Amino acid sequence: MDSKEFFIPRLGEAQIASPVQAMEFVPDDATVAYDTSTAVLEEYVKNGQAIPAFEQAGPRKLIYHDPAWSKAAILTAGGLCPGLNDVIKFLTLTLKNIYHVPLVYGIRYGYRGLNPAHGLAPIQLNEDNTDDIHQQGGTILGSSRGEESAEIMVETLARMNINLVFCIGGDGTARGAHDIAVEAERRGLSISVISIPKTIDNDIAFIDKSFGFETAVYMAGIFAAGAHNEAKGAYNGIGLVKVMGRDSGFIAAYATLAQSYVNYCLVPESKFVLDGDGPDALLPHLYKRMLEKQHAVIMVAEGAGQELFPQGEDVRDASGNLINKDIGLLLKDRINQYFKERNTEVNIKYFDLAYTIRSVAAHGADAVFCAMLAQNAVHAAMAGRTDMVVGHWNGHFTHVPIALATRERKKIQLNSPLWTSVKASTCF
Amino acid sequence: MDSKEFFIPRLGEAQIASPVQAMEFVPDDATVAYDTSTAVLEEYVKNGQAIPAFEQAGPRKLIYHDPAWSKAAILTAGGLCPGLNDVIKFLTLTLKNIYHVPLVYGIRYGYRGLNPAHGLAPIQLNEDNTDDIHQQGGTILGSSRGEESAEIMVETLARMNINLVFCIGGDGTARGAHDIAVEAERRGLSISVISIPKTIDNDIAFIDKSFGFETAVYMAGIFAAGAHNEAKGAYNGIGLVKVMGRDSGFIAAYATLAQSYVNYCLVPESKFVLDGDGPDALLPHLYKRMLEKQHAVIMVAEGAGQELFPQGEDVRDASGNLINKDIGLLLKDRINQYFKERNTEVNIKYFDLAYTIRSVAAHGADAVFCAMLAQNAVHAAMAGRTDMVVGHWNGHFTHVPIALATRERKKIQLNSPLWTSVKASTCF
Amino acid sequence: MDSKEFFIPRLGEAQIASPVQAMEFVPDDATVAYDTSTAVLEEYVKNGQAIPAFEQAGPRKLIYHDPAWSKAAILTAGGLCPGLNDVIKFLTLTLKNIYHVPLVYGIRYGYRGLNPAHGLAPIQLNEDNTDDIHQQGGTILGSSRGEESAEIMVETLARMNINLVFCIGGDGTARGAHDIAVEAERRGLSISVISIPKTIDNDIAFIDKSFGFETAVYMAGIFAAGAHNEAKGAYNGIGLVKVMGRDSGFIAAYATLAQSYVNYCLVPESKFVLDGDGPDALLPHLYKRMLEKQHAVIMVAEGAGQELFPQGEDVRDASGNLINKDIGLLLKDRINQYFKERNTEVNIKYFDLAYTIRSVAAHGADAVFCAMLAQNAVHAAMAGRTDMVVGHWNGHFTHVPIALATRERKKIQLNSPLWTSVKASTCF
Amino acid sequence: MDSKEFFIPRLGEAQIASPVQAMEFVPDDATVAYDTSTAVLEEYVKNGQAIPAFEQAGPRKLIYHDPAWSKAAILTAGGLCPGLNDVIKFLTLTLKNIYHVPLVYGIRYGYRGLNPAHGLAPIQLNEDNTDDIHQQGGTILGSSRGEESAEIMVETLARMNINLVFCIGGDGTARGAHDIAVEAERRGLSISVISIPKTIDNDIAFIDKSFGFETAVYMAGIFAAGAHNEAKGAYNGIGLVKVMGRDSGFIAAYATLAQSYVNYCLVPESKFVLDGDGPDALLPHLYKRMLEKQHAVIMVAEGAGQELFPQGEDVRDASGNLINKDIGLLLKDRINQYFKERNTEVNIKYFDLAYTIRSVAAHGADAVFCAMLAQNAVHAAMAGRTDMVVGHWNGHFTHVPIALATRERKKIQLNSPLWTSVKASTCF
Repeated sequence: MDSKEFFIPRLGEAQIASPVQAMEFVPDDATVAYDTSTAVLEEYVKNGQAIPAFEQAGPRKLIYHDPAWSKAAILTAGGLCPGLNDVIKFLTLTLKNIYHVPLVYGIRYGYRGLNPAHGLAPIQLNEDNTDDIHQQGGTILGSSRGEESAEIMVETLARMNINLVFCIGGDGTARGAHDIAVEAERRGLSISVISIPKTIDNDIAFIDKSFGFETAVYMAGIFAAGAHNEAKGAYNGIGLVKVMGRDSGFIAAYATLAQSYVNYCLVPESKFVLDGDGPDALLPHLYKRMLEKQHAVIMVAEGAGQELFPQGEDVRDASGNLINKDIGLLLKDRINQYFKERNTEVNIKYFDLAYTIRSVAAHGADAVFCAMLAQNAVHAAMAGRTDMVVGHWNGHFTHVPIALATRERKKIQLNSPLWTSVKASTCF
Repeated sequence: MDSKEFFIPRLGEAQIASPVQAMEFVPDDATVAYDTSTAVLEEYVKNGQAIPAFEQAGPRKLIYHDPAWSKAAILTAGGLCPGLNDVIKFLTLTLKNIYHVPLVYGIRYGYRGLNPAHGLAPIQLNEDNTDDIHQQGGTILGSSRGEESAEIMVETLARMNINLVFCIGGDGTARGAHDIAVEAERRGLSISVISIPKTIDNDIAFIDKSFGFETAVYMAGIFAAGAHNEAKGAYNGIGLVKVMGRDSGFIAAYATLAQSYVNYCLVPESKFVLDGDGPDALLPHLYKRMLEKQHAVIMVAEGAGQELFPQGEDVRDASGNLINKDIGLLLKDRINQYFKERNTEVNIKYFDLAYTIRSVAAHGADAVFCAMLAQNAVHAAMAGRTDMVVGHWNGHFTHVPIALATRERKKIQLNSPLWTSVKASTCF
Repeated sequence: MDSKEFFIPRLGEAQIASPVQAMEFVPDDATVAYDTSTAVLEEYVKNGQAIPAFEQAGPRKLIYHDPAWSKAAILTAGGLCPGLNDVIKFLTLTLKNIYHVPLVYGIRYGYRGLNPAHGLAPIQLNEDNTDDIHQQGGTILGSSRGEESAEIMVETLARMNINLVFCIGGDGTARGAHDIAVEAERRGLSISVISIPKTIDNDIAFIDKSFGFETAVYMAGIFAAGAHNEAKGAYNGIGLVKVMGRDSGFIAAYATLAQSYVNYCLVPESKFVLDGDGPDALLPHLYKRMLEKQHAVIMVAEGAGQELFPQGEDVRDASGNLINKDIGLLLKDRINQYFKERNTEVNIKYFDLAYTIRSVAAHGADAVFCAMLAQNAVHAAMAGRTDMVVGHWNGHFTHVPIALATRERKKIQLNSPLWTSVKASTCF
Repeated sequence: MDSKEFFIPRLGEAQIASPVQAMEFVPDDATVAYDTSTAVLEEYVKNGQAIPAFEQAGPRKLIYHDPAWSKAAILTAGGLCPGLNDVIKFLTLTLKNIYHVPLVYGIRYGYRGLNPAHGLAPIQLNEDNTDDIHQQGGTILGSSRGEESAEIMVETLARMNINLVFCIGGDGTARGAHDIAVEAERRGLSISVISIPKTIDNDIAFIDKSFGFETAVYMAGIFAAGAHNEAKGAYNGIGLVKVMGRDSGFIAAYATLAQSYVNYCLVPESKFVLDGDGPDALLPHLYKRMLEKQHAVIMVAEGAGQELFPQGEDVRDASGNLINKDIGLLLKDRINQYFKERNTEVNIKYFDLAYTIRSVAAHGADAVFCAMLAQNAVHAAMAGRTDMVVGHWNGHFTHVPIALATRERKKIQLNSPLWTSVKASTCF
């Protein structure tokens, strides 16, 4: 890594005393080293190179935006994720109670709400109308996919004198935030644009943890146990559970360990074939297990095994994400066929968890993470940072350049402790 | 109703003093009137007719089977349902702790386990190996669909000297129990065959409540709330939830009231059309609502709207049940098409709850119902009743002839308080 | 029972056509027989007596109050109970959507809100502000204990032209509703006063089921399992769980069956002593069990064993309920002492569930019951019934005179199937 | 920090090829830097000092113990914590499936089970008898407090030829593990003794996360919402919730953020007084809030406010932990008194969560953490490490010397992001 890649833009010099009370301020040059290996760290120093590190998040003693003159906007984009309302609530509380920003707007339906052509009036957010929202799944603001023109959106922000923008969403949303930041700079507007990373798949690079993920794992675990019950309840029963995970199989891997009844964990990162003699051939392995044990649970991420489909035209959603072909149905069909050819009874019970695990409220430590992430986003914005994602690394909240966060997707490393644990817990 | 239809066969005269302690015995002629209207009740008496009534369940002072010489068998058949393990546990506890029956067999995989051709050895059940099972969904015995020859099964029972048989399952299972009872009688064997009604759809006639149903409603409610979050989270969002309910829409109706966010509740009992000018045309009504409110939740029972599919050959499962065509997918397609034709954005999020709501453990009062149902099944068997279903009516546990229980399915009455409440809570 | 005791007062002749659509009206003389035994029923008829029966609840073809001129008030009194907000929501929906009553007031903090001295302004309830409330525990209206003068309250109702009053609460609340009805009649005001029975203890006579009870049982069951884990986790561990149940032990009994790990279920209805030689002596029995099994779970209702305390002055709460002495702490002390005297280690883990099981939202079928109860309360009020409780009996919703409902508390019958099941599942 | 404090003892040279498949081995000198600030890190290097760092956990290419000759023992000590059974299951699976260790003993009731005087036979653990245990709270092995003689315990290990010992428990348990390691070394026995840190309070120094903590936070959050409902349900209602947290208030702080209804979060780290004029005076602040808002929720850790009690003799439990005086009851009494003196009604609802939040099964990501912690404990033991705790730091699993882990307790830093977030979310 090159330490220059970690640079975070600032709107200007912070000169206003922070109104934040009873809190140790984080120095402007505080860092969180990217690496933790002492050998690697020493190497940098000995070579005279700066240690690559994230800017550490947190409240600054001097801030850039004058709270009394500030107006904030919050929006949510992309698919639902547990915790959206916690983030909205804590952005609002921190802006209103800690910094005393007088006006906080909730923008409706993502970037769409910043384009007046859609006629979507914003909501004023405050302590009272956000008090209960953490108990609801979804987002009180509504969400949408797709892009709007940066020129039009910045025109709206300029017209409304908004200088603090919080965009909660995935990498598409982060790229939109970047476009807004660039356009604002072009027009000479001092607008802090902060992206708050939302990915139920936990697949954002350079960020070690995403909100909503743990709640999704908890929900998936409930049904992994149900799939086990279905598998044992029928003769030669197979519980087949499909979960989210377009490019990365973190939900599948975690749910496998959280409900350690799962026998096969299929993720995009680990290729397998259906038939053949190799150790990566699913059907013969499964057939053998069924003869021995008469039951099995298969957990499959939606993005797994895409290469098993006949090649054809790709289909993409409004956010530009490739739409996966349904690996769950393919597995169901092929397993049924394989057993039928061998005159062996099999009873597959298919659980497609799609929306069931993402539409609930975040809970416990996951909700706490939302609260702290939101607060650090506000600290960053008030300090005049922009064009960045608020992240988490090595136990600290961090500032991450959007370019870095969207460069690639985080994936399961097949030699990592996580995947090793999955292998130890499963049989394939 | 004719009072003769309520007759329950007895194997012979009960002459053995019950070992049951500290419990008021239920007289052999105790009854639970079928009707509750005083006008109807008076009419019977004035006409000199017997009031139609179920035999009341409960422990008898004199029993038919000598516990010390008894051997019991328990089996589960058909699809999973919350509470199967509670029933198995309380059958075992009552047989062992209350009646001191020395041997209780758990038969594997339903009726299949009574046919030696399948090579499935039974399990001996006792207090220790059933102690934790109420915390698990599914059935520890395994289940299966399909029939076995009554001759072969009774031969097995005779060979093993089993005189108490408990068949937990739906109406197919009850018919199988009847066949066993008839064959046992033909062979002169004194075997009590008791059917314990299992239907997650709560659709057994002459029985006002089925175990597992309430837990399924609870689970479905969680996802109805999730569907509401998805509907509000996207612009013109529709949460579409499909639940079980082949012939009867009780789960859909109850879940609609339990999570009163649902706007459309579609059940087999209430016909609707997709398009047209009438008040029963779903798509125009939905389209109008979406223009006004921008979100909707639809709850649909799997058996609803089957007449909307093109006619073709019926497909049946191994239990002989008609397999429904997927009304959820049809609705999804037709709604998308309808809105597309009108150039109106719509975002449908489809929840197919199939197995997710039936594979969990029963909880709370539902588990209590399992416990009491199981106990009354044992009391009936020990008293020498056979060829019957243990049921519940007007607040009492009852004995129901299998012919009565399987004569028709219980359905939602469209003029009942239940459906009235659903109509008040929804908009269609 | 005497059939005259079932008489429900009517404000006057119902002459207005009901606006209720698509619903079969319940005839004004529809009844639900109190008894279900055919022998008992026949006896009444043969003796020329009317069969004692409740008036059946439900919508009437002709109603008394003109909806367009009506104003309704809803209040909640006494302790929290799961489902209060469901009842409030469905009263509101039924009044507004089915009967088109223009104004529905939510009265704050029980009867207190009807006394202007407290300065508590009412809330206007409608579809929008009640849409989410079923997801919250507690009551959005606030509650309180204690009485207010009927004269003052009726003066408030008269001043506000309120002709429909719904009082959700226990037997104290029902008596308050009766006082309002009497005072309204004295002043010649046509006010329907309907009491909706709330008792988490499920102890109201002549009503077979109370809302909130099933949710409380579900919650108590979670901790009964936790108590089992604590008991097995420590050497000679005892999990001691205290639940609500001042006069009746229904929660304790149901939770015992719902989580069938409980070994001792102690309720007010079944007396026991601490020491001695008898079979009802708890400590020697427990001591013996611990030597054999090294663990035990005790479920105790707060009102159990009150006679074990030294006699003294009774303490009552603001509702006039006798405050129980803490049987949980007494048991904890006496068990510790008993084992200490015998030099035997014991590790008691005490769970006092008090508020933890009553402050949650109602769920599943329990929420459905709230919805239907509320609707039937509105039907009764609109039809001009007053001075009554809406109840449930033998599978039907009913009208119950307040005098009957408050005459005595429902208690566990020690020879009932419920208690029999508890005895079968426990060891004492 | 001094880098020497991070040294982990090794039993001898690792010479045996690891049987672990398809996993990247962690080099023996892999490290996880203690600090993440680049300025601090550079300072060490420039001063010629080694960067203080933990040994990184994970599988080694060469191991010390020959699996085929190995025997393992697992024990759990101290209070219950969610996840104990997950740890036991994954220790067993890793030992049996990954390393093929033939014998894994479960020792009953903590260290007590290693003293033959108690007559507690061990259990043989395997894949089958641990398959379901992750679904149960508590520990299948039983637990206990208190010490046993290291000489006697090592004599037992020697007699049974056990060379791998896993002690799951708090700092008392870690000290016991240290004593075993020292005694084993004195006798020349090659026994790896690995401590697995269990603290529901999340208060072990040099370890950033403890298993069970997140599940406890989740449970506490449910009741914080209940306390909010009770507070709003009564006039001038106060929901008072006591949670675990003897020396550190992490559960209270996290639960406050997870259910952001809490208005006062009282922890041992932040002193407060009851009365007076200062900003740290609880009662006047609370009184003022109640006049304005009529409701409040207080979350208090059991160790908070201990200095408010009259001084007296300290009481300690069998593990030597100081037993706290009941701050919950003190607050309840003093608040009642304060309001009474001011003739102001107040309704306090007290929730003592004690065992209710620790006796449940771990779920979701918390269970995953248990699985991975257990696996790394086995890797450490097989590689010949001893006298250490397996920990987690900066996103990596680590080896921590027992002396370091038990030197002090981790506490909430009052200037940390966590406490800052709590202050932002509460009013005191």
